[in-house]
Amino acid sequence: MSMVAVGSIAFDSISTPAGRVENILGGSCTYFALAASFFTKVRVVAVVGEDFTLAHEKVFAQRGIDLRGVEHAQGKTFRWGGQYRDSLNEAKTDFTELNVFESFQPRIPREYADSEFLFLGNIHPALQASVRRELNGVRLTGGDTMNFWIQGTRQELLKTLKLVDVLLINDAETKMLADEHNLPRAAQKVLALGPQALVIKHGEYGATIFFREGAFGIGHHPFRAPALPIEEVRDPTGAGDSFAGGFMGYIASAGSLNREVLKRALFYGGVMGSFAVERFGTERLQSLTREEIEGRFQAFRELTHLE
Amino acid sequence: MSMVAVGSIAFDSISTPAGRVENILGGSCTYFALAASFFTKVRVVAVVGEDFTLAHEKVFAQRGIDLRGVEHAQGKTFRWGGQYRDSLNEAKTDFTELNVFESFQPRIPREYADSEFLFLGNIHPALQASVRRELNGVRLTGGDTMNFWIQGTRQELLKTLKLVDVLLINDAETKMLADEHNLPRAAQKVLALGPQALVIKHGEYGATIFFREGAFGIGHHPFRAPALPIEEVRDPTGAGDSFAGGFMGYIASAGSLNREVLKRALFYGGVMGSFAVERFGTERLQSLTREEIEGRFQAFRELTHLE
Repeated sequence: MSMVAVGSIAFDSISTPAGRVENILGGSCTYFALAASFFTKVRVVAVVGEDFTLAHEKVFAQRGIDLRGVEHAQGKTFRWGGQYRDSLNEAKTDFTELNVFESFQPRIPREYADSEFLFLGNIHPALQASVRRELNGVRLTGGDTMNFWIQGTRQELLKTLKLVDVLLINDAETKMLADEHNLPRAAQKVLALGPQALVIKHGEYGATIFFREGAFGIGHHPFRAPALPIEEVRDPTGAGDSFAGGFMGYIASAGSLNREVLKRALFYGGVMGSFAVERFGTERLQSLTREEIEGRFQAFRELTHLE
Repeated sequence: MSMVAVGSIAFDSISTPAGRVENILGGSCTYFALAASFFTKVRVVAVVGEDFTLAHEKVFAQRGIDLRGVEHAQGKTFRWGGQYRDSLNEAKTDFTELNVFESFQPRIPREYADSEFLFLGNIHPALQASVRRELNGVRLTGGDTMNFWIQGTRQELLKTLKLVDVLLINDAETKMLADEHNLPRAAQKVLALGPQALVIKHGEYGATIFFREGAFGIGHHPFRAPALPIEEVRDPTGAGDSFAGGFMGYIASAGSLNREVLKRALFYGGVMGSFAVERFGTERLQSLTREEIEGRFQAFRELTHLE
């Protein structure tokens, strides 16, 4: 199974109570691809600048990630700077330099055409839609978005949502997209916009998946995967993207598409997100093993398991 | 098994997006006692004024709750007014009239002396300590507190915490009490202050229980009970107290004291809290049946159960 991931590759400067780093490899697509690479073959579509070196490429290559869809443009790679205060729940952006990302036009290499899974990272919804239309043979499309697109490009986003099977967003984005404060009601409104399933990420409280009636099998109950309380949170950057990578990666590896697979995927999403935050940037995802992943998956199950 | 509950009986005036009510029966002890009454015999210690009528008494009597420890004082019962905005997560207090509650001195009737369980509701920590010392034969003491006491009467609270076996507070209270933003680390700091276990209530995300090393059996892993996403939230007042009632009530009914009992109790806490918010005031707890409770308990289990 192969999965195409489109999104950003960036250099991040991050300050948290645990320390400070400058210009380290980041970006939504980077976290997603690294997390998903533990489960499936990942093919990236992104853009980088002249400051993207062989050492950066190696981070992807060591996880077997295909970079043939990465465009090397003149100029600098997307840069983001931000800081987290004590609570670690919200980033305060210091600066955003879009650089080569500003005129990003995703191009799908011919070699990616047989991919069965697609993840549309957090980019302009019109670009998401064009990628999805080009890869019209995929079995399942996951997608992300954010308040910036929900407010600024709502009409384009609504068109894209009709092409997305599973939307992964957080509580605030769900409420904003639905214009509804009650989360289960907001979820129903979002599902009515197109997706077969909606994954709402609750940060340290885990995530809930809501299904459209009849989608992925019978039943109408939502499902929740709690997150393990983590003592060692050094850098929350990339947690949501790593969650999406674990979620989509597990689905791509599972063979069949049904509710039980999506439920397990929700746990694997939480597992990958919880690892990502233990070190700055991609450090923990780079050093991770499949055994550690399975160990934490079991710990997550036991966290809510009654005898 | 009998349980003594000490706390407030109040008349509440509440405004939520679902409507408005005035002077309805409320108070932490009321919600706690009603919720716990589905599991065990509850004996209340509280104070009411001359405006507390037979009709109010009947709400307790119909659930078999013992009111012999309720003092009838001259003056008016404690009154609270508050409103909830769209998010329903936080109450904005309109007014607080302590009335007879201001000089409340809990007195334990002789008939309560053989009680095996005790819940110290959210009152002055020095009063909590005096009740606990008087009922020194109890097997397990649960306790609540709030930011007001954590900040204003810290020294008294620290003494009381040494007498409490299970403390039930929310995320913000835990962080404030421990002066630590990371929740698992904050939990360890709170446990070091005395309690054998700490239940952190996460509102709509459920609750987590942290155990002191060696308390209630072996192991050191926390346990989390997720809450069911509720579409019908009309009035959040009393959710936390109803949670505590379900939690403590189930423990009192279980016979033995071990981690598995406390884990199940965490689910029952969530169940009772989720029912309480479906109607204004105590309405839903009054109409509830044990069958409905068991049904939701199963739904909660399935919410996170992988095949």
